[in-house]
Amino acid sequence: MANQGKDRQPKYQQIAGALRAAIQAGEYGPGDRLPGENDLMATYEVARMTARQALGVLQSEGLTESRKGAGVFVRDFKPLRRQGIKRLSEEQWGNGQSIWAADIGDRTLEVDQVSVCEESAPERIARVLDLAPGDAVCVRNRRFVLDGKPVLLATSYLPAELVAGSAITQKDTGPGGIYARLDELGWKPVHFREEIRSRMPSQDEVSSLQLTSGTPVILLCRTAFADEGRAVEVNEMTLDSASYVLDYSFDA
Amino acid sequence: MANQGKDRQPKYQQIAGALRAAIQAGEYGPGDRLPGENDLMATYEVARMTARQALGVLQSEGLTESRKGAGVFVRDFKPLRRQGIKRLSEEQWGNGQSIWAADIGDRTLEVDQVSVCEESAPERIARVLDLAPGDAVCVRNRRFVLDGKPVLLATSYLPAELVAGSAITQKDTGPGGIYARLDELGWKPVHFREEIRSRMPSQDEVSSLQLTSGTPVILLCRTAFADEGRAVEVNEMTLDSASYVLDYSFDA
Repeated sequence: MANQGKDRQPKYQQIAGALRAAIQAGEYGPGDRLPGENDLMATYEVARMTARQALGVLQSEGLTESRKGAGVFVRDFKPLRRQGIKRLSEEQWGNGQSIWAADIGDRTLEVDQVSVCEESAPERIARVLDLAPGDAVCVRNRRFVLDGKPVLLATSYLPAELVAGSAITQKDTGPGGIYARLDELGWKPVHFREEIRSRMPSQDEVSSLQLTSGTPVILLCRTAFADEGRAVEVNEMTLDSASYVLDYSFDA
Repeated sequence: MANQGKDRQPKYQQIAGALRAAIQAGEYGPGDRLPGENDLMATYEVARMTARQALGVLQSEGLTESRKGAGVFVRDFKPLRRQGIKRLSEEQWGNGQSIWAADIGDRTLEVDQVSVCEESAPERIARVLDLAPGDAVCVRNRRFVLDGKPVLLATSYLPAELVAGSAITQKDTGPGGIYARLDELGWKPVHFREEIRSRMPSQDEVSSLQLTSGTPVILLCRTAFADEGRAVEVNEMTLDSASYVLDYSFDA
């Protein structure tokens, strides 16, 4: 192997570079196990710390993930496809279908944690829902699990006055979910806004979503509007970026 | 300070926790400088390596960013707002306006690097554009800079046969850009699909976008369709997640 120029790179970077090239060439495919620290120490004649640093580089780039006791594996990306526009259409939620059903094909997306409570609205939520500071909101926290793995945290905020006495304040909102109930209450959602960003997760998010190192989260904030532009729900979602592709289709 | 329970945490985690709490409480606001390694060593009576690890935790969570020679700062999030639907509407690009103009308010988004070439289509692009393997595509690479900082890499692929001889094959595509030229060629875009995901950046992306540690990238792949569902352009974009909010507004 020619190594002028490369000599300027620290050894762990050279090893990381060789492994990266092997992944990109397909020598290690999605889900394959990479050589471990002991293998790298033997192959490259380096100390354990150097081998560990090399593997750390690939992990921080999100190319690999380590599984406790099992080793380091090439990251496999088999995401859910969340269709942002079609899935929210009236046909989907008007006849009792969950808005999540469109995404999952033959895999099962389930809610494994729900809690509902009333709180005074955080300032950013009060602003979007056009409430006075301190007004009460109904807060619905849910965690969604796919094949046993948490993939999505969702917290919905609705004006408490608007939804008082409806199934929206219960754990089970009934067929068609929140939007069908809002329709019955005379606040049918007719317009949506979705705002998206991405950042590294907090420690809480790492733990709730069981994220591996090198996995960002996608933040998706959806606001539902009824007639005359009245905001009736804000849903703050935190998505495991390794589990999702967002998809928007629209006409010019 | 009570510290049962906390004692089980390594010292650097305790320090990171205290700094994190101070940031969340607003004691250090966006853009503020955090205590440096020397400050932490004195305050907590720890070794330099421990102070460095504590700062590393916050940086890997994306809460802070370090600037060479200047210290560690609380991350400031003042993003561009990219409106995915309105901005692509015919009113915007039909009369000579760039599709990027809507985003930037009084800040200046500029292309600082452009290259145009002809290549054979990568397999994933050939699939979307419905080309035969090896068919030629016109490839337009651009880098966008905001206030001197690179924020977006965009690579457009168009069937070479479709755009031959047009300004799309030139660095300067003329007023209204690619979409106005496609319209003149009889391939007016009437439908769009945008697919979004997020991951940690590659080393090349870190360098092209000048990303600080703990900053993911957003990948946005836009496909433009002309009448009868003919895909006429695929644009693969890589966005600095610290610089962008994506925004989609649509009716139910």
